[in-house]
Amino acid sequence: MNAFTPTARSRAKRLHERASYDEAAVFAALDAAFIAHIGYVIDGQPYVTPTAYWRTGRQLYWHGSSASRMLRSQTGGVPVCVTVTQLDGLVLARSGFHHSLNYRSVMAFGTAHIVDDATEKARELDRFIDRLYPGRRATLRPNEAQELKATTLIGMEIEEAAVKVRSGGPKDDDADYALDCWAGVIPIRQVIGTPESDPLRRKDVAYPAGLGDYQAGATFDAVMLKVAKTIEA
Amino acid sequence: MNAFTPTARSRAKRLHERASYDEAAVFAALDAAFIAHIGYVIDGQPYVTPTAYWRTGRQLYWHGSSASRMLRSQTGGVPVCVTVTQLDGLVLARSGFHHSLNYRSVMAFGTAHIVDDATEKARELDRFIDRLYPGRRATLRPNEAQELKATTLIGMEIEEAAVKVRSGGPKDDDADYALDCWAGVIPIRQVIGTPESDPLRRKDVAYPAGLGDYQAGATFDAVMLKVAKTIEA
Repeated sequence: MNAFTPTARSRAKRLHERASYDEAAVFAALDAAFIAHIGYVIDGQPYVTPTAYWRTGRQLYWHGSSASRMLRSQTGGVPVCVTVTQLDGLVLARSGFHHSLNYRSVMAFGTAHIVDDATEKARELDRFIDRLYPGRRATLRPNEAQELKATTLIGMEIEEAAVKVRSGGPKDDDADYALDCWAGVIPIRQVIGTPESDPLRRKDVAYPAGLGDYQAGATFDAVMLKVAKTIEA
Repeated sequence: MNAFTPTARSRAKRLHERASYDEAAVFAALDAAFIAHIGYVIDGQPYVTPTAYWRTGRQLYWHGSSASRMLRSQTGGVPVCVTVTQLDGLVLARSGFHHSLNYRSVMAFGTAHIVDDATEKARELDRFIDRLYPGRRATLRPNEAQELKATTLIGMEIEEAAVKVRSGGPKDDDADYALDCWAGVIPIRQVIGTPESDPLRRKDVAYPAGLGDYQAGATFDAVMLKVAKTIEA
């Protein structure tokens, strides 16, 4: 079983029984989500930017952001922390202290760099569409050269990563189970709504079969994970 | 109208037409959410930790994390970036380049410190429960002294903040509207599921009326915002 080797950087300091460094577990958590929070440092100041990302093996990719200018001047790349979190529920215990939340979270560390190689860049931008929208790219016009040029692609090999999961109900102190107090879990999920066609669309163009998994009421993480599998090497 | 004064740190570098520094807009976005991604730096390495947070005026609070040890040794506090993001939808355009996403995001900057004052600490931990669960605290046993001691509370005054919002459909190049390509928005929302009572509960304890907003199908951000208003000063 492949695993990331944790160092002080990624080893869980608290609640380590919730943590795993297994590659498959990390990849599954990454593939079930869409938004990452990218942490980087400029002149000692931390920044956290939310952005869409995708994964190719141990590489993570995202579009350029306000960090791009800094990256242009740091050809060796810069250290980043990529965190992906899904909130799964509120956990209501019988004391304030034991209230908690259910979640899945990945923290991935590596060195971010700008992808300048034209082949890798074109391939990965295509992959971003394919990873989200099966069959869609055949219906789009191809990327234009100046669009590729205007897009900054950032890549990062995952050097270390940990996934943390909390699930299940509250864990209360023994004496507190006798209290006259409701306890349990309020689940929270990301759910897809009814797709809204562009009012400016050609009226003869129907919602594509390739996007059939994106239907009202579907759970977003399940769709993300399923669609990610369609492009796995 | 109160506003945060942006400096280079918080002023939007890209797509600045989507950004606002208005205090009410920042507060509304913060009050509609529950999980923040906290960015901080240790020895030049960025870390991004997901955590539940709450707001009291211009103060943000959260529970201690792996940054706590560092904070103990930095009595002046440390610079942090607190980012809160809600994904509202996938935006499918007629070219790869114009694909986008709808979101609301706040980036707040300040100096984090450990709250050691016993009065502030007790008040804010109570407020965290009240902010989430109206009326619940009366049904809990009070916090014990050693629980307060075991809890690290971190506070940060928001020095600067910006909120960014993208909404609406795709913006395509004029010529592309003629393509045989579906375009539009796939909405995504955080939705509350059916509350799950703890199997170990007292069977005579019903789901509390004070949590009536947390019902299956409700939109999480709307509930968060509504409940936050019940404790506003």
